[in-house]
Parts: sequence; C-alpha cells; structure tokens
Amino acid sequence: MTLPRILAFDVFGTVVDWHGSIAREVAALYPQVDGDAFALAWRDGYYPAMARVRSGELGWTRIDELHRIILDGILPRFGLEHLSEAERQHLNRAWHRLDAWPDSVEALTRLKARFTICTLSNGNIGLLTNMAKRAGLPWDCILSAEVFRAYKPDPATYLGVAQTFDAAPDEVMLVAAHQEDLDAARPCGLQTAYIERPLEFGAAHVKDVSPSPANTFHARSLTHLAEQLLA
Amino acid sequence: MTLPRILAFDVFGTVVDWHGSIAREVAALYPQVDGDAFALAWRDGYYPAMARVRSGELGWTRIDELHRIILDGILPRFGLEHLSEAERQHLNRAWHRLDAWPDSVEALTRLKARFTICTLSNGNIGLLTNMAKRAGLPWDCILSAEVFRAYKPDPATYLGVAQTFDAAPDEVMLVAAHQEDLDAARPCGLQTAYIERPLEFGAAHVKDVSPSPANTFHARSLTHLAEQLLA
Repeated sequence: MTLPRILAFDVFGTVVDWHGSIAREVAALYPQVDGDAFALAWRDGYYPAMARVRSGELGWTRIDELHRIILDGILPRFGLEHLSEAERQHLNRAWHRLDAWPDSVEALTRLKARFTICTLSNGNIGLLTNMAKRAGLPWDCILSAEVFRAYKPDPATYLGVAQTFDAAPDEVMLVAAHQEDLDAARPCGLQTAYIERPLEFGAAHVKDVSPSPANTFHARSLTHLAEQLLA
Repeated sequence: MTLPRILAFDVFGTVVDWHGSIAREVAALYPQVDGDAFALAWRDGYYPAMARVRSGELGWTRIDELHRIILDGILPRFGLEHLSEAERQHLNRAWHRLDAWPDSVEALTRLKARFTICTLSNGNIGLLTNMAKRAGLPWDCILSAEVFRAYKPDPATYLGVAQTFDAAPDEVMLVAAHQEDLDAARPCGLQTAYIERPLEFGAAHVKDVSPSPANTFHARSLTHLAEQLLA
C-alpha cells in the first residue's frame, strides 16, 4: 500500500480530550455538579442531534447550535436550569476550549513536515479554528462537515477531502479513534488509521480499543502513528 | 474604532506575488514566451470567468477549473497550443506555487499572536492550502469562495467570515490590495485595510496605490499594517 498524501483527522476524542476538558470545566464552574456525568450526558445527545439533521428533520445546523440544544435539555437534570443566557453561551463554548491529548501537538507537527494534515470533523469551522489556536494544533487546513454541508458518516465528507485536494480516495487517510468512522470511510476508498484512546470517556469508563484488521494502520497514540508513517 | 478580532486576507496580489511567480515559472519552462505578458493575459481572464459563474451561466466552478479554461484559451496566442494534457495540468498548478511577498510570512506570524488570521480568497481550498504549505503562510483557517459557494464581491463571502466566527461584521477586517474588494466589504459592515502592492502587475506596470479615506487602515506593506495594529 502506498502512503497517503493527505491525513484527515477526526478531532473530538482522537486529537482532543472532550470528556476530560468538559468534565473539568463544568466541575470548576459548578462544583456541585458531577463533571463526568455531565460530559457524558452532553455527548450522548450528539449523535441523535446529528441524526435529526441527516434525516432532514432539522435543516443544516452547526454543531455549536446542536450543542446548545442538547445543553438546554440536560441542564435541569443537573440542577442548572437557572443558568442565564450569558452563562449558557459561555458553557456552550467549552467545546471551543478542549485540551489536546498530550501527544497531539508534537505528533501533528512531525506529520505536517511530510503530509498535508487537515481536520475532518463534524465540528464547525469556527469551533475547530478557535480550538486549534488555543491548543496549538498546527493544521494545514480546517475541513469540517460545515464545508461539505453533510455530517460524517455521509460519504460526501470523506470523498469531499479527496476532491478538495484533487486526490484519489486512497491518497487520503482518515485518522480516528472510532471504528464506525473508519468503517464508513473505507468503502469510499480512503485508507484508515485507528488511534487507541482508551480514556476517551474518562477513567471510569475505559473504552475497548481492540484492533480491527480492516484498518491500514493501528496505533497506540498519534506519536505511534507518526513513528509508523515516518519510519 | 475598536480593533477587529478577525483579520481576513485577500491572497492573490495582497499576500502572494502572482504576477512575478507566474511570469518566472512560464519563462523558466518556455524561454521563448514573454512571461510578463503571459501572466497578465492569464489573470485578465479571471474576472470575466468568475462573472460567468456569478451570472449563473456556469454552475459553481472552482478557480482551478476557471484557470484551466482561461489557460487553454490563451495558449495559442503564445505559440503553446502544442502543450500536452500533463503539461497543461502542471502549468495550471503554478497558481498553487505562488511566492509570498517578502514581508508576508513574518507579518502574518506577528499578527497571528494577537488576531485570528484567515484567508478570504476566491481561490479554492486545495489551492490555498498547497500555497500556504509551500510558502509557510501560518493561517489559522483557510476560508474561500469555495466554502461559501459564492465569489467575492458577493456579500455572502464577507458576511460569511463573520458568521463563521460568530462575530459582528465590524469585528472582522478585510485586508486587501484592491480597493474594489474593500469597497464591497465596507457596506457589509467590515473594517477595511488597504495594502500597497505597487508591483502587483510587475515592474513594467506600476499600480496606483493611492489611499482611500474610506478605509480603516492604509499600509505600505503587511509589516506596516502589523506595526499599526500591534502598536
């Protein structure tokens, strides 16, 4: 298999630690709240909300707006229904302030010297830009569901990366910590790399990170992926 | 006037030297051709080609494809009608290989420490990404007509930058070496900065770079803009 030219990265969970970042921020702002449970509840609304867009029930809606709809829905469950509009807006932007996993910046910087590195996230462009600027993620280009007006796992997103760079699908590799994302990219012709992120859902909910033989690469971290790709 | 949060840069002519880069590449590949005249002829087709998209005569078409249509049209005039498909493709990608003006990388790097810096170019995303990677342009985010499916001076492009970052229009400043670009952004509510690029069309065709009092800033170079914004 020839190496790809373009590495497209899933972001939430693969490059940044959404669970730990949200849990820490919620616990700091509202010490009475269980940050772990809050982060999981917020994220639980994510796939159903995107499904409403994909089904056409909702018109095109950015993740920022979907996060807010979910947030408003879960606040009463955590005794936070009194939050003001400004407090809700600030909390919703916590998704723009996610911390990178400790290996991400250095590994991406190494990979950038050899490959074009871009995001392929369901997060909106502004969110991903603010996150990258704060966390120091050195993307060559921020691609998003917002560019393609379709959410992963819609083939338009995976094939959209290839079209953006006038590349054949197998010149693009999706890098993700989620087998279902990789499983959707593979039939589009992309190469795939799985990254183990056993703590994606927090230390209390260790995730199965078993390899799938269908992927082109399997790596313990982005550093481990860089070692394999730059060997 | 409050300083903007986001600086959106026109690219061709403002950040990179399209005329010199194209003229040099053409003259190196085909020494019998007048590189200056070739670069001007190619660029002359640019606005009419975009006008065909804006009028609806052509469906959405990327600049790469418009450049190719124009290229095929001018080759006979320069005795290059014999170029093969591969040679035409290579030459067309010269627009991905434009050199930055000497001040651009350092000034953008300084501005990036304080502002979100993005492109707002009619160039397509892949072109702008390849150009940035080669020239070392440190964009936080690559925004393009391709994202908004509209070419400047369509208001959807200027307002699209503000919407992308949940910003009020006057929190965005367009930075450009073309008064007509700035003149279109201003009624949308953006701040505007004019950059003098007297040699945009080559040393044989020095451009009028007179200030317009309508702009928020007027600068001799991106370095001079950085000095004013970071003062």
